[in-house]
Amino acid sequence: MISSSPGFIYHTPVNVAQIPGLNTLGISIARLDFSTSGVNPPHTHPRATEMLMVLDGSLHVGSVTSNPGNRLITKVLNKGDVFVFPVGLVHFQRNVGTGDVVAIATLSSQNPGVITIANAVFRTPNQLIPSEVLTRAFQLDKNVIEFLQEKF
Amino acid sequence: MISSSPGFIYHTPVNVAQIPGLNTLGISIARLDFSTSGVNPPHTHPRATEMLMVLDGSLHVGSVTSNPGNRLITKVLNKGDVFVFPVGLVHFQRNVGTGDVVAIATLSSQNPGVITIANAVFRTPNQLIPSEVLTRAFQLDKNVIEFLQEKF
Amino acid sequence: MISSSPGFIYHTPVNVAQIPGLNTLGISIARLDFSTSGVNPPHTHPRATEMLMVLDGSLHVGSVTSNPGNRLITKVLNKGDVFVFPVGLVHFQRNVGTGDVVAIATLSSQNPGVITIANAVFRTPNQLIPSEVLTRAFQLDKNVIEFLQEKF
Amino acid sequence: MISSSPGFIYHTPVNVAQIPGLNTLGISIARLDFSTSGVNPPHTHPRATEMLMVLDGSLHVGSVTSNPGNRLITKVLNKGDVFVFPVGLVHFQRNVGTGDVVAIATLSSQNPGVITIANAVFRTPNQLIPSEVLTRAFQLDKNVIEFLQEKF
Amino acid sequence: MISSSPGFIYHTPVNVAQIPGLNTLGISIARLDFSTSGVNPPHTHPRATEMLMVLDGSLHVGSVTSNPGNRLITKVLNKGDVFVFPVGLVHFQRNVGTGDVVAIATLSSQNPGVITIANAVFRTPNQLIPSEVLTRAFQLDKNVIEFLQEKF
Amino acid sequence: MISSSPGFIYHTPVNVAQIPGLNTLGISIARLDFSTSGVNPPHTHPRATEMLMVLDGSLHVGSVTSNPGNRLITKVLNKGDVFVFPVGLVHFQRNVGTGDVVAIATLSSQNPGVITIANAVFRTPNQLIPSEVLTRAFQLDKNVIEFLQEKF
Repeated sequence: MISSSPGFIYHTPVNVAQIPGLNTLGISIARLDFSTSGVNPPHTHPRATEMLMVLDGSLHVGSVTSNPGNRLITKVLNKGDVFVFPVGLVHFQRNVGTGDVVAIATLSSQNPGVITIANAVFRTPNQLIPSEVLTRAFQLDKNVIEFLQEKF
Repeated sequence: MISSSPGFIYHTPVNVAQIPGLNTLGISIARLDFSTSGVNPPHTHPRATEMLMVLDGSLHVGSVTSNPGNRLITKVLNKGDVFVFPVGLVHFQRNVGTGDVVAIATLSSQNPGVITIANAVFRTPNQLIPSEVLTRAFQLDKNVIEFLQEKF
Repeated sequence: MISSSPGFIYHTPVNVAQIPGLNTLGISIARLDFSTSGVNPPHTHPRATEMLMVLDGSLHVGSVTSNPGNRLITKVLNKGDVFVFPVGLVHFQRNVGTGDVVAIATLSSQNPGVITIANAVFRTPNQLIPSEVLTRAFQLDKNVIEFLQEKF
Repeated sequence: MISSSPGFIYHTPVNVAQIPGLNTLGISIARLDFSTSGVNPPHTHPRATEMLMVLDGSLHVGSVTSNPGNRLITKVLNKGDVFVFPVGLVHFQRNVGTGDVVAIATLSSQNPGVITIANAVFRTPNQLIPSEVLTRAFQLDKNVIEFLQEKF
Repeated sequence: MISSSPGFIYHTPVNVAQIPGLNTLGISIARLDFSTSGVNPPHTHPRATEMLMVLDGSLHVGSVTSNPGNRLITKVLNKGDVFVFPVGLVHFQRNVGTGDVVAIATLSSQNPGVITIANAVFRTPNQLIPSEVLTRAFQLDKNVIEFLQEKF
Repeated sequence: MISSSPGFIYHTPVNVAQIPGLNTLGISIARLDFSTSGVNPPHTHPRATEMLMVLDGSLHVGSVTSNPGNRLITKVLNKGDVFVFPVGLVHFQRNVGTGDVVAIATLSSQNPGVITIANAVFRTPNQLIPSEVLTRAFQLDKNVIEFLQEKF
């Protein structure tokens, strides 16, 4: 485990960015380490389905179906449990046990991509999404949106 | 145009849900109508690239690249302009003209799917994403997150 | 509309030949303008299914199923109507209204290709298909075939 | 050889229509028998590339590239020669030897489809392509088109 | 670990045979447990590339390139090491440490298939591969081949 | 026929290694010549399904299904008969007639690959598969395995 301070997650990927020879092979893998209360925040993989296996600890995982249902499907995974996140769906993981969690994420592309939702919406370094768009999207006052954007 | 009240968007899809015979054909289309200031909030299509053509009006569009860059690429499209949103990337559109906007969105799948980001994160009717996950993701106090969830 | 003289069609494509960045994205689009009586003659797209939406006017469209049926399926499309031409099938469009027609064609490949049947059969600039082949194919006298080839 | 009368071609396919178990396997084959002067008229396969090998005799083959070039590429194939017709392109074969020709055509789909151009354009049993479309496409008088359509 | 007796391997798959909902998702996973000296004999996956990660122990892995080279590529993997076996290539794994080995194999198909080479060649229960084929293939006397076939 | 001495097979491929222009076209072909008793030993194609047509002679063919069944499916093919070997499965052919056999093998990839099983297992020139792996796989004494490896 990389860090013993609570709340962290560490992501060790093995994909075409690390190993060019994976090109066209259609698979990649990543090790995920969660310290206690560590959260992998809501994100998507634009080009891959993910299969997750927990090696140690208790991990609360969730995935949201697409419109119009937007149903949240959740499960607490323990050692040896497996869960699948279909391509492009929003999903998250959270360590809900008393110790560290180690998990393996495998993806159906050598170049799966990752989009952290909060960053893609509120933290785009070169320019921000117009507050008019975000106030409408999140039904919030403009100053709340700007507060959110400054947070990052 | 369906509605003359400002701020609305109306989405008329033609995909495999409407026409089962499109199965395996790998294409679908949708008409988008924006009244003044109408916003199509940040969303993704988990299984299709989108190509958008503006037929009338001025539409501000934006798309965010995946991690780690999260760069926001934007452009104001006028009548006849075309823009492309690669599969799975977060994107939005907003009417920035003085009249209605009509646009055609075409998608590289008969079953592209839509995920409205704000709904997938804050509005999952059967159960909510745990506030511990969202406070970490958005760097917000728990009561702000709960305020956001109640909004919907 | 580009031309007010009757019988013309103008084709404005947006595919990988115009925009190299579309490579691998699996979609392209084209605007079609028909003056009165304008005809898009029988053609195929060797690598894409086409979805067509009429924006203005009345367009008679037809598509022929493959052997052995060779059934012609036709429809007059008006503003807002949509039709699909599956990959590789012969199809045509004709303005049957009193004004211009504007339509959007979307295709399930960034590199769909177009084959105008009459050109591919009778108008191959570098050398002609042997008249023995065409007399058999079209059940015509050799001098009629040569008359057809000279026409172009 | 099935027939000794000149000018014929006989096509013996092995694809998913004959053998349902080929589904998803992505390949099919056909034996082609040409009597002297036998012609396989211009046609396309909407869902497969074809590779042709001549087993006996001399076969003149040709394939036309897509728009805008429409170049005709031809070759006389003798025993053991191989030629490839990329997916969707118009192509033909003709026995130019003094005896029968036997050839094997293999296709990159279990369901390649065949579209005989002359039939798809002039011989659609349920209804004909409007003469206005064909006169424009082939630059012919209406009565010549109708003569062509009656021929079949 | 399932068994403490040396030389064994235990394979716990999660694919479409166990979970029908994985259909079309393009990924599966398996846990591999090797007791000391345990061997996963030469085999192939006809429809998937495999990525292997060692969780515990020391695993000697090898993969053979296709004709004409037939080069054997090997490596001893320790905890955390990853190796890839491209689709269809012959590969094997062997516990070369002093304790058990646990590894995770992920595959780029929900239905990857497994072919154990020795079984496919010498142990086909309904009928055997003719000894004339195997004597030629393995350059062995017929009675050695029959001895091999009886072994199983 | 290349050779009149019995027991030989000669393979004349036409794939992307011979013709780079076949790239992306998804098909290739090979001519197979068997002298009397000629054997094409057990092998797989890692990236293609094969369809085989016998042009002359009598050919005994067999294919083994994947685990756990490992059923051997065989048939004697005569002139004009066709057989299919699904992607990645072990298969073989043997001339069981009194004369030469000529057959055409077509494959659903321009780059199908070939893996001769005996070579991949016992004849890897740069280094051998460890005898510990092969003794376990084939249930043989180490000296028998070494005898097999020296044979090649």
